[in-house]
Amino acid sequence: MRTFKLVLEYQGTQYHGWQVQPGLATIQGTLQDALARIAGRPVPVVGAGRTDAGVHAVGQVASFRADLGLDPPTLQRALNASLPRDIAVVEAAEAPSGFDARRDATARTYRYTLLCRSYRSAVWRDMALHIPRPLALDAMSAAAGRLVGEHDFSAFRAAHCTAPTPFRRVTDARLDREGDLVHFLITADAFLQHMVRIIMGTLVQVGVGCLTPEGFQAILASGDRRRAGKTLDPRGLCLVRVHYPSVPCPR
Amino acid sequence: MRTFKLVLEYQGTQYHGWQVQPGLATIQGTLQDALARIAGRPVPVVGAGRTDAGVHAVGQVASFRADLGLDPPTLQRALNASLPRDIAVVEAAEAPSGFDARRDATARTYRYTLLCRSYRSAVWRDMALHIPRPLALDAMSAAAGRLVGEHDFSAFRAAHCTAPTPFRRVTDARLDREGDLVHFLITADAFLQHMVRIIMGTLVQVGVGCLTPEGFQAILASGDRRRAGKTLDPRGLCLVRVHYPSVPCPR
Repeated sequence: MRTFKLVLEYQGTQYHGWQVQPGLATIQGTLQDALARIAGRPVPVVGAGRTDAGVHAVGQVASFRADLGLDPPTLQRALNASLPRDIAVVEAAEAPSGFDARRDATARTYRYTLLCRSYRSAVWRDMALHIPRPLALDAMSAAAGRLVGEHDFSAFRAAHCTAPTPFRRVTDARLDREGDLVHFLITADAFLQHMVRIIMGTLVQVGVGCLTPEGFQAILASGDRRRAGKTLDPRGLCLVRVHYPSVPCPR
Repeated sequence: MRTFKLVLEYQGTQYHGWQVQPGLATIQGTLQDALARIAGRPVPVVGAGRTDAGVHAVGQVASFRADLGLDPPTLQRALNASLPRDIAVVEAAEAPSGFDARRDATARTYRYTLLCRSYRSAVWRDMALHIPRPLALDAMSAAAGRLVGEHDFSAFRAAHCTAPTPFRRVTDARLDREGDLVHFLITADAFLQHMVRIIMGTLVQVGVGCLTPEGFQAILASGDRRRAGKTLDPRGLCLVRVHYPSVPCPR
């Protein structure tokens, strides 16, 4: 058995998220189907981030073990020929035995993209959330900066989140402007369910002037989900990168 | 009757081009349907560029005359509420009486986008043409530069093009790199049918080393369509901007 690592790009619009669900199209299920066609038997796959329905990725990482006689470039080509057009393999590599895309990841970077202008976009309709009013980006940046560090993120956590602890360590959180697009980039060791989408909903409250950066920080400190903003639409969210130790951990 | 000017953004993937065709979904037809719903009667629309099936726009311009009691911002909102998600009105304005989006345009800028990397993209699949091999961009830029000026573009013209003359004046033609994307931007007074897509097919021949910039120029000078490259896929093409005299021409 050999261990493989895949880096995946996908547009999540047509999928019920990463994780296999009976009878529904998911990224994991579609990838497993393609791998099974290539391997001639079922191949369970582990993903680094369990992206929700409608969420995209340009750097999701998956790992699996299989008895494949293919070198990684051939595997990449075979998968890209077999997968639907909205899922692509950006990179395929053989990984050290025991590599697990989820367990070995040390951090994840997500991006949430807003389209800030009065009228909607035909081209960005599935890849950015349209906010048809001006946003105070300096105040939003100041609020985003308060996220850095280790915190109890209970205020930014879905009610049905099952993570054993609400503590997460955020190492970077910032806004980048690109024309009418505003990207919020956040890196943390891991994320609670809906964490980025709830943070973004609360940052938009700062942007429209309903909340100050200090008020944002107070909501974080309160741990009270009811004080935070709403869970924004998944279409703006994208898993950009999964981070691993530069030297693979020996097992 | 008032005259209106609209700037349109659309993803052309699901449409049979700009121009109305019986029984087929087109941008012009869809826009006219939306305007007819708002105006309560048929509203014929003129477009500056007759984009082909599958071609996109971020700056198409349309004009029409109608007895509308709406101010332009309200018209824009009404249209954006009525049009499908892959067509958006970027700008609406009242224009001088007699304004004609097609006849009054002095130039058009098109962009053709290539995705240059070994593996395909899930996100850019409908907005860029995937070229899975390295391209010599310096040679392509040198060749593109030979397009500037007034030329007989018969070598880069579809067999069924019905334009009365093959002469066009190109005022700018260049390549811009953006990560794995390569954008070819070209501005001319007007374009022959498939002109940008055939030019791009020939520039790619330069990029892969089958043609030199001098050979490219010789093809242009020959006026021989058979010597030029193939007509590339419409998905890479986008009408970026339509240019008008800065002072509206009085009539």
